[in-house]
Amino acid sequence: MNSELNTSDMTDTITAIATPPGEGGIAVLRLSGKGSFDIARKVFYRDKDLAHGFDAALAESHTVHFGYISGKGGLLDEGLLTLFKSPHSYTGEDVVEISCHGGSFIASKLLQTLISSGARLATPGEFTKRAFLNGKLDLSQAEAVADLIRSKTESAHASSLRQLEGELSGFVKQARADLIRITSLVELELDFAEEGLEFVGKEEIIKLIETLSQRIREMISTYIAGKIIREGVTLVIAGKPNSGKSSLFNKLLAQDRAIVSGIPGTTRDYLEESVVIEGVLFRLTDTAGIRSSGDEIESEGIQRSFRKIADADLTLYLIDSQTTGEDLKSELQNFRGNVSGTNSILVFSKSDLGGKAGHPDGVSVSVYDDASVNDLKKIMKEKAFERGVKVNSSEIVLTNFRHKQCLESVLASLESASRSAEEGMSGEFVSVDLRSAMSHLGEITGEVTNDEILNNIFSSFCIGK
Amino acid sequence: MNSELNTSDMTDTITAIATPPGEGGIAVLRLSGKGSFDIARKVFYRDKDLAHGFDAALAESHTVHFGYISGKGGLLDEGLLTLFKSPHSYTGEDVVEISCHGGSFIASKLLQTLISSGARLATPGEFTKRAFLNGKLDLSQAEAVADLIRSKTESAHASSLRQLEGELSGFVKQARADLIRITSLVELELDFAEEGLEFVGKEEIIKLIETLSQRIREMISTYIAGKIIREGVTLVIAGKPNSGKSSLFNKLLAQDRAIVSGIPGTTRDYLEESVVIEGVLFRLTDTAGIRSSGDEIESEGIQRSFRKIADADLTLYLIDSQTTGEDLKSELQNFRGNVSGTNSILVFSKSDLGGKAGHPDGVSVSVYDDASVNDLKKIMKEKAFERGVKVNSSEIVLTNFRHKQCLESVLASLESASRSAEEGMSGEFVSVDLRSAMSHLGEITGEVTNDEILNNIFSSFCIGK
Repeated sequence: MNSELNTSDMTDTITAIATPPGEGGIAVLRLSGKGSFDIARKVFYRDKDLAHGFDAALAESHTVHFGYISGKGGLLDEGLLTLFKSPHSYTGEDVVEISCHGGSFIASKLLQTLISSGARLATPGEFTKRAFLNGKLDLSQAEAVADLIRSKTESAHASSLRQLEGELSGFVKQARADLIRITSLVELELDFAEEGLEFVGKEEIIKLIETLSQRIREMISTYIAGKIIREGVTLVIAGKPNSGKSSLFNKLLAQDRAIVSGIPGTTRDYLEESVVIEGVLFRLTDTAGIRSSGDEIESEGIQRSFRKIADADLTLYLIDSQTTGEDLKSELQNFRGNVSGTNSILVFSKSDLGGKAGHPDGVSVSVYDDASVNDLKKIMKEKAFERGVKVNSSEIVLTNFRHKQCLESVLASLESASRSAEEGMSGEFVSVDLRSAMSHLGEITGEVTNDEILNNIFSSFCIGK
Repeated sequence: MNSELNTSDMTDTITAIATPPGEGGIAVLRLSGKGSFDIARKVFYRDKDLAHGFDAALAESHTVHFGYISGKGGLLDEGLLTLFKSPHSYTGEDVVEISCHGGSFIASKLLQTLISSGARLATPGEFTKRAFLNGKLDLSQAEAVADLIRSKTESAHASSLRQLEGELSGFVKQARADLIRITSLVELELDFAEEGLEFVGKEEIIKLIETLSQRIREMISTYIAGKIIREGVTLVIAGKPNSGKSSLFNKLLAQDRAIVSGIPGTTRDYLEESVVIEGVLFRLTDTAGIRSSGDEIESEGIQRSFRKIADADLTLYLIDSQTTGEDLKSELQNFRGNVSGTNSILVFSKSDLGGKAGHPDGVSVSVYDDASVNDLKKIMKEKAFERGVKVNSSEIVLTNFRHKQCLESVLASLESASRSAEEGMSGEFVSVDLRSAMSHLGEITGEVTNDEILNNIFSSFCIGK
């Protein structure tokens, strides 16, 4: 663990609601830290009259107890208390989980009571951060927890679970072992250089560095696919008013999320929905019709459309198949001018109405023709992965931008080491680069880290994890 | 328990996700029934390789175990299993709870695995229904569980918790004891009537019945207040376009839920939001401006406005304070014609703009004047409770329509018994009525019930409870 780490905020006891907000059968609140059992005793009672606080210290770890929960004004609820004694808990600290009736009201009242009894509201990811700081998980595994919770597709789930189970850690560990070997060869040579001994040749060192660099390059190359697996693809549906955007949006969602009507300008703002198509998560945006408009609200909507196209991973640009002559020409120009520079698919919509408009690069679609929609879905998937390498579902894939950055730094250091060696520079220079590569590698799993990195990582977690 | 009950669906093992949907640190799935431990063994493993299924039957009740969860394609997640052995569980059956990483994806995959391993998806409230059928709770307590989960205000929470803790059951039990006493007096008299003995006089019986009836009447009278406590008040904000409806809606919500703009007709559809004002839950509806409109979508919105006013518990009708002359006259007529028959408040809006329109029954409000908005809130609370009796927060309050219906039937039977006694009818008639009252009383707590009643009650629960 790095000495830069500020672990002073680990002395207090943290709490949060661990279950999602909303109505459900139960809600679970968590306490972690030295004061967990004391705080629990002030909140959780054996009897309805709240006379006998429950003493978790006297109970065995990993046991569950029925009792009564106190609130500000007396009895708040009945519930169950589960206790985990340090170090045998998620965080490695004393942990108490209280499960109460679901619904936000009770859970938030209980949270208030826990806080007024001495706990502090946990920051996002703070339970997992403590688990990391106490050595229960390495950093890439901790990050996998957040990804696991967010996963919405088979592939996203599988890749984050592999990461949680330590597969990326394994890759890093192996690369680290190789680096240590190369470094010690270089440094041995350094030590004995004056004696004129040469244990391994320069070429051998360069070859070893190149082999490792190649493995890291391959891992980096999985990132685009990994990003799609983890985050999905943002897809914008654009086109003139009444070109069938909302109908296609609904068809792709297979539900009536948007108001569909024949009146141009029905969709004033943009609508966003997520849907898994061909195993890929698409985040669909239905934009306001792109046209000049005197209507104040609609103009704002159209401005937002263009911004959305620029930000999107993929755009479907719709032209009504019935468009002809100058209109068609201007529409194709519009597409080429505003959209085709981005990753996009040209769609000729309403192909069931007998229109003749088309283009060799376009695809004809009717929402009433499932086959045409399925063809579009396949093209969407292909286009989504176009910029990435094909990955096998059982491979480890780089899904996290931070990991990619670390590996790129490792690679840069290795390349620098290789250059130094080639240019016949002193082994000391080579060694410095190799040690820098090792440090960047350690950032992935958290052997090398600092508060800023940690805060960055854990702030993207949900509270309660 | 009533012999009409069909308990044949209690032989299988049920499962559901017990936590709310959405992202959170953890999700909890529940199994209840004879097969819980067998199913758990197929899904929950001691080892990552999923070789050794966890045998809950060998573990102690109320213990928690870390392990690995299998899915269709292999390892699905890490998690915790908690077991409760019959009869020491919520349902009284063998219960297993598996807690996995939050997020809908993992939870729904685990649910699928539990189902394909032999569990059946629980119907809404089925866990609580089993708890009732196994004698863990009476029916009014079971209903309190659903109310507790839904509670959004202090008073709703307090009243459902009192019901869960058996206060309504206590009232019913006491009334039942009184009824048994009266009935036995009547029937004793009946038995010895031929011998010419008179243990208690007719007047004494009538007096006893009246005392009980009065207590039941008082309980029934708490229902309107109880309904407001439990369900809140539906409040519609209505008025001409640009009369300030959306601004007031936002001000009351203290957040920008509706798009506010100076363009008439911005709110095409209606928006609904809940907010607690003065301790009362208001369900606010912002309606489309009421005006003649050639716009197809807006016309539909206006039709919905009038329907909303008719259904609402309370309507705020807004007139712009700057309205004058004929316009004002026509607006007041509009209010009297369409709104004032319902429970409503006449609001003169935009009072900061120096308009002079007003009315003795109206209240002037500006969203830029917090004092005027606070006055309006107080009037809203008064109006909400206007039709109900004042209730003390520590009293038991009737919040459930079914309970009210049962008590009304009890009352009708008591009144019939009283009439029969007064008219000097045979004691047998009086006794039949008293026994009918007893039966209706038993419906509240479920001593007397049938499948239809139960299905009705539990179908309003959330799944997983």
